[in-house]
Amino acid sequence: MSNLSSPETTPIDPAIEAALVASTDARAQALLDFAAIPSVSALPEHAGDMVKAAEWVADRLRGVGATDVAVEPTSLHPIVYGRIHEAPGAPTVLVYCHYDVQPVDPLELWETTPFEPFLRDGRFVGRGVADDKGQLVMHISALEAMRSVGRAPAVNLTFVFEGEEEYGSDSLYAWIEANRERLAADVAVISDTGFFEGNIPGITVGLRGIMYAQIDVVLSPVDLHSGMYGGTVANPANALAQIIAALKGPDGRIRVPGFYDDVVPLSDADRAAMAALPFEDEAYRAGIPVNALVGEAGWTTLERKAARPTLDINGMWSGFTGEGAKTIIPAHAHAKVSTRLVANQAPEKIYEQFAAYVAQVAPPGVTVTTTFIHGGEPSLTPTDHPATQAAARSLKAVYGVEPVYMREGGSIPVTAAFDHTLGLPVVLLGFTQPTCNAHAPNEWLELDNFERGTRVIVRLWDELAGLPRG
Amino acid sequence: MSNLSSPETTPIDPAIEAALVASTDARAQALLDFAAIPSVSALPEHAGDMVKAAEWVADRLRGVGATDVAVEPTSLHPIVYGRIHEAPGAPTVLVYCHYDVQPVDPLELWETTPFEPFLRDGRFVGRGVADDKGQLVMHISALEAMRSVGRAPAVNLTFVFEGEEEYGSDSLYAWIEANRERLAADVAVISDTGFFEGNIPGITVGLRGIMYAQIDVVLSPVDLHSGMYGGTVANPANALAQIIAALKGPDGRIRVPGFYDDVVPLSDADRAAMAALPFEDEAYRAGIPVNALVGEAGWTTLERKAARPTLDINGMWSGFTGEGAKTIIPAHAHAKVSTRLVANQAPEKIYEQFAAYVAQVAPPGVTVTTTFIHGGEPSLTPTDHPATQAAARSLKAVYGVEPVYMREGGSIPVTAAFDHTLGLPVVLLGFTQPTCNAHAPNEWLELDNFERGTRVIVRLWDELAGLPRG
Repeated sequence: MSNLSSPETTPIDPAIEAALVASTDARAQALLDFAAIPSVSALPEHAGDMVKAAEWVADRLRGVGATDVAVEPTSLHPIVYGRIHEAPGAPTVLVYCHYDVQPVDPLELWETTPFEPFLRDGRFVGRGVADDKGQLVMHISALEAMRSVGRAPAVNLTFVFEGEEEYGSDSLYAWIEANRERLAADVAVISDTGFFEGNIPGITVGLRGIMYAQIDVVLSPVDLHSGMYGGTVANPANALAQIIAALKGPDGRIRVPGFYDDVVPLSDADRAAMAALPFEDEAYRAGIPVNALVGEAGWTTLERKAARPTLDINGMWSGFTGEGAKTIIPAHAHAKVSTRLVANQAPEKIYEQFAAYVAQVAPPGVTVTTTFIHGGEPSLTPTDHPATQAAARSLKAVYGVEPVYMREGGSIPVTAAFDHTLGLPVVLLGFTQPTCNAHAPNEWLELDNFERGTRVIVRLWDELAGLPRG
Repeated sequence: MSNLSSPETTPIDPAIEAALVASTDARAQALLDFAAIPSVSALPEHAGDMVKAAEWVADRLRGVGATDVAVEPTSLHPIVYGRIHEAPGAPTVLVYCHYDVQPVDPLELWETTPFEPFLRDGRFVGRGVADDKGQLVMHISALEAMRSVGRAPAVNLTFVFEGEEEYGSDSLYAWIEANRERLAADVAVISDTGFFEGNIPGITVGLRGIMYAQIDVVLSPVDLHSGMYGGTVANPANALAQIIAALKGPDGRIRVPGFYDDVVPLSDADRAAMAALPFEDEAYRAGIPVNALVGEAGWTTLERKAARPTLDINGMWSGFTGEGAKTIIPAHAHAKVSTRLVANQAPEKIYEQFAAYVAQVAPPGVTVTTTFIHGGEPSLTPTDHPATQAAARSLKAVYGVEPVYMREGGSIPVTAAFDHTLGLPVVLLGFTQPTCNAHAPNEWLELDNFERGTRVIVRLWDELAGLPRG
């Protein structure tokens, strides 16, 4: 615990601190054991490992005195459920992590064997140590230390540990719908995110949603000879390009009428906070790398990265795509289009606006249809929400610095499910670093963050005990 | 010979006519024999058939007294060469047909076996009977009839019968370059086209050329996560769509600066002649079928179909093209783009203009390159050229009606080679009908056109004898 220089830390309960010090090796070993289980949700050959990992989690929950512990079957991988409800009248916190991990390919880029994790020079290295097994172990470890000195959390905890986060979370939504009562809570804490660049403690307050659609443009039943028909019929690929080009203006603004209507404005304070973050455009650009950073006029890169909605073509295809030349007018052309949404844009409404606009700008001579593929709600928890502030105080106490408030450009599906389906405020409190190779070879987690994160969690249950109940 | 009602025909030399009548069955059988050879140039397993067909042609040439007959090897299929130069001081005519045929798939749509051709109800049916073996046999048959009554053509004839017309004519260009002296002539007659809709005798005076290129747009070395990077970087698919959309205006005009500079204007007479042709937009539209006919403002469908240049995307691809959704910003995006050119647009110049314009309209944040894939010169023989008029008189004599002058939207590579490499005026005189299924199942040729076409050729050599020599 040495990489943060500020001395402004506040110790946790000395008995729990002593218990954590005593269990240092055992806790590290627990993560190494857990990360050694190759629970790759995407690969059918790991189905047995998925069950093994789920059982490992359930055993640990039982070990900290959780009740109603169950490895709940779904149509794919089980969800581990459990609860510690020992604080009558106190708020209930829904705690989420996931026990599945990303596939490991390309294997040749790993410096070691992905499922033979190790701790060396202050870092855990191995698939899943950061995303998300390390964070799950922090939650369990905090409870083990508390239990070892006879303490119970000051809030009621309900645990949901998922096994399909890296594979689309398909089973989760129906399971949440079917288990609303068992999931009743006052706030959700999701530990599947991380800190800001440079290991600056942070809380993720915003995630973008998504609206994903397809545009299909059809000219004719078959490809036409471009010499015989060229000049007399529309070209579906040209038509699709026209439609796509009409979606955004030269200023990078999305031209779909009404698209920005529901966007919650960034406050001056939000913008000032983002501007204060140590973010260097040039380093970001060079790290991708791209020629230049490009986006909506009037907003900084960091704002565009997560706090502004986007529109991107994800794929596009038409006609002849081989080597050389084929002289056809393609019969049809297609594009996958997605918009990243920010609060309070609703995917279904955005799709309706999008479809209407596409129909409006479609050129004559072709048949243009749009199809909704999937949607996900954006989420935004106010910085001044009591739960966010409880998490901020917990981080401040352990790290000695004020945490920053971040928005992430992507989506964590469970967040939207907790937010929109269960109606819970969501605190995204995670302890990894942006460069942790979460979905890449040589995934790592700083031991210091593992240790401090466990203490942040210990403190968080106390801080949340005072949360006004909804 | 009954499908044209006009009585205004002029008989050919009675002796030759009698010889043609006497050889009616033999000439039909010759076409059936020739069409039974499966000379599919695109398929390696037919290499032996290609040689067999070439030898068949060479034997026939020798049979009509041609000299210097040679089956000339190329890097793929041989070219059959021969000459009848028995008219000292008279013009020399370069005669071109091709002995190769299109592949036959889809075989299940043939009502008979493609290489078991037959003559029934006034039609030859089988692969190649129209394109182009029927026309080659007409040329040979005309000479056989003349020879049988002791006549020689009034012009000098040099024959080039190609074997790769349906496979790109790759060998032809180098062979023409290498054989300029043996190909010295005053005019070229190419019999590989046809009549106007409704079997109206016509001469093709214009063919479009082509400039075929590729646009490559690169963002980054790998696909990027659309959530993490969306809003901060350019999207190569969106960028490509912008470029493509900028290529044409809403009026259908190509916006590449200078693109139209070298277009030979359509004269009022040209436009009046095209307007007089019996062409119905609605029937044409329904026959494709497409929703609507679309093209450059200010020109009729027939003008846009062949007498105006075009720009079409032939293919386009980027990113994710599977089922469902993948949330990426593609690393790169690509398009095949071709323009059909009209006289006097030069493919190389058009490419330079195109490349410069693409570079100009390319949005920031991506690397855009263009590549020239291939080019072909347009060709246009004046309607009032003496050779065109000689062909017109020949058609008029046999069919009893004034032929129409047509432009075709596609390209016949040898035409540009004869026109631009050898500097010859080209007469495109063919006898098929637009609906003859040239590249489709159940290819056919009207017996009446086979018979009359042979007589047109007999007359043509007389008519061309008076051609002023270049």
